[in-house]
Amino acid sequence: MAVFFNDHFVANENALLHVSDLSMQRGYAIFDFCRTKNWRPLFLNDHLDRFYASAAAMHLATRYNKEELTAIIYELIERTLLDEAGIRILLTGGYSVDGYQPASPNLIITCNAVKTASLADFENGITAMTYEHQRELPSVKTINYMMAVWLQPLLKEKKVNDVLYHHKEIITEFPRSNVFIVTKDQRLLTPSRHMLRGITRKQVLSLAAKQMDVEERDIRTEELLQAAEVFLTSTTKKIMPVAAIDGNIIGDGKPGVITRKLYNEFLQLEQQGGQ
Amino acid sequence: MAVFFNDHFVANENALLHVSDLSMQRGYAIFDFCRTKNWRPLFLNDHLDRFYASAAAMHLATRYNKEELTAIIYELIERTLLDEAGIRILLTGGYSVDGYQPASPNLIITCNAVKTASLADFENGITAMTYEHQRELPSVKTINYMMAVWLQPLLKEKKVNDVLYHHKEIITEFPRSNVFIVTKDQRLLTPSRHMLRGITRKQVLSLAAKQMDVEERDIRTEELLQAAEVFLTSTTKKIMPVAAIDGNIIGDGKPGVITRKLYNEFLQLEQQGGQ
Repeated sequence: MAVFFNDHFVANENALLHVSDLSMQRGYAIFDFCRTKNWRPLFLNDHLDRFYASAAAMHLATRYNKEELTAIIYELIERTLLDEAGIRILLTGGYSVDGYQPASPNLIITCNAVKTASLADFENGITAMTYEHQRELPSVKTINYMMAVWLQPLLKEKKVNDVLYHHKEIITEFPRSNVFIVTKDQRLLTPSRHMLRGITRKQVLSLAAKQMDVEERDIRTEELLQAAEVFLTSTTKKIMPVAAIDGNIIGDGKPGVITRKLYNEFLQLEQQGGQ
Repeated sequence: MAVFFNDHFVANENALLHVSDLSMQRGYAIFDFCRTKNWRPLFLNDHLDRFYASAAAMHLATRYNKEELTAIIYELIERTLLDEAGIRILLTGGYSVDGYQPASPNLIITCNAVKTASLADFENGITAMTYEHQRELPSVKTINYMMAVWLQPLLKEKKVNDVLYHHKEIITEFPRSNVFIVTKDQRLLTPSRHMLRGITRKQVLSLAAKQMDVEERDIRTEELLQAAEVFLTSTTKKIMPVAAIDGNIIGDGKPGVITRKLYNEFLQLEQQGGQ
């Protein structure tokens, strides 16, 4: 398994950072994550746009422009013998002299086997609980998933698959996914602020806009529970129905008509190479 | 420079973690930091108590008990040819299989040269700006200092040394220090919640309780600006006067009488080995 490390390819076991890196000292790093299908990265342009936006927001210099990074990623895919993989582009605060001031960033790009949601996963959907939390700098894809990882024992205890954050009863996002609701009068709603703008979210908005009313706006938890359909979107989960939230069954607990339609359209888009 | 790495000592250049560690994947790790003086760690017992509390709060298993960890730290100090050093005990989420679920933690203990505040630093004090922010899981010493590092360009722009967080006008802490105020009627106040309980803070509270009224409670920003004296406490800054906040000079901008008295008492305590 090859890894791109700053300016050359290394074997996976050599993808090592010294403990003085600001990612380990102060949790200071950004990343992006895309998926390949048939040896090609899906929606790479959008992922790279977000990667550069995250780096700029965190004052981290980037060494390569978009064309160079694209070429590196294509070479990484070639060197990795996987037709479907997850590509993680990590940019850290670098080897800080005082453990606080950012230094020259370290760039590590990995390409590993990835588990994506299957059709059976889609049919089952997931269950979720809500939790009051607002992520720091939510529009930036930083490595800070502390709350999400910390909450995992609670999710096990509550016997749910995932957690949907809300802030003062306005829902925002899952830790790694965006949320959508279909209202009983067939409008598609999704939060517009205080969350990360997912790449799958963007594709779904574009697919939906051709066939129904779409609103990006604040959504209250009551609206969520009254929805006809609820689903989430993410790079690995694609489109995933949410069957129950806080013990309340959404619709009949099965994938809804709109959710299924968007899902099938998204799979087609993906099959076409997601360009 | 020696480093303790899970179960053995390594050279500093080998203090490397693979990028799959949850600290780099999801910012998931805790640490503690203490200082040595004359080859002895100051207030080690308190630091280790907090380290174990942080680990437990983050569901991270610890491999060594307090006696074993103390012995490792003393050996590390012996192997490192520094009579004064900073010891950082880092415990991460480990090499996660899926980049999300915690695994067996990695423990890395470093012992490096440390810059502490001098008497001249004390006389100059520092300047600060206030900023609305509430840290996540503030009572746990996690590696999440994302906001603090992110704010550094703003501090430079505002020409101040540090930032004092407040939440809805209630002050909480500096990113790496606790805050104290001396009121005009000679009471010592410090926040009681939504912040990290510093080890130097604990010592200062104990020194102050012998000579004046001390209150741990919510403090509003108005009270801060009306204070006779303001200072911060931290392991490396010890006790440091705050000369100005948001451009408002505190007192006459010089170290106050109470601040200086507590500072001298703290230096004595430190000289005695901080036990």
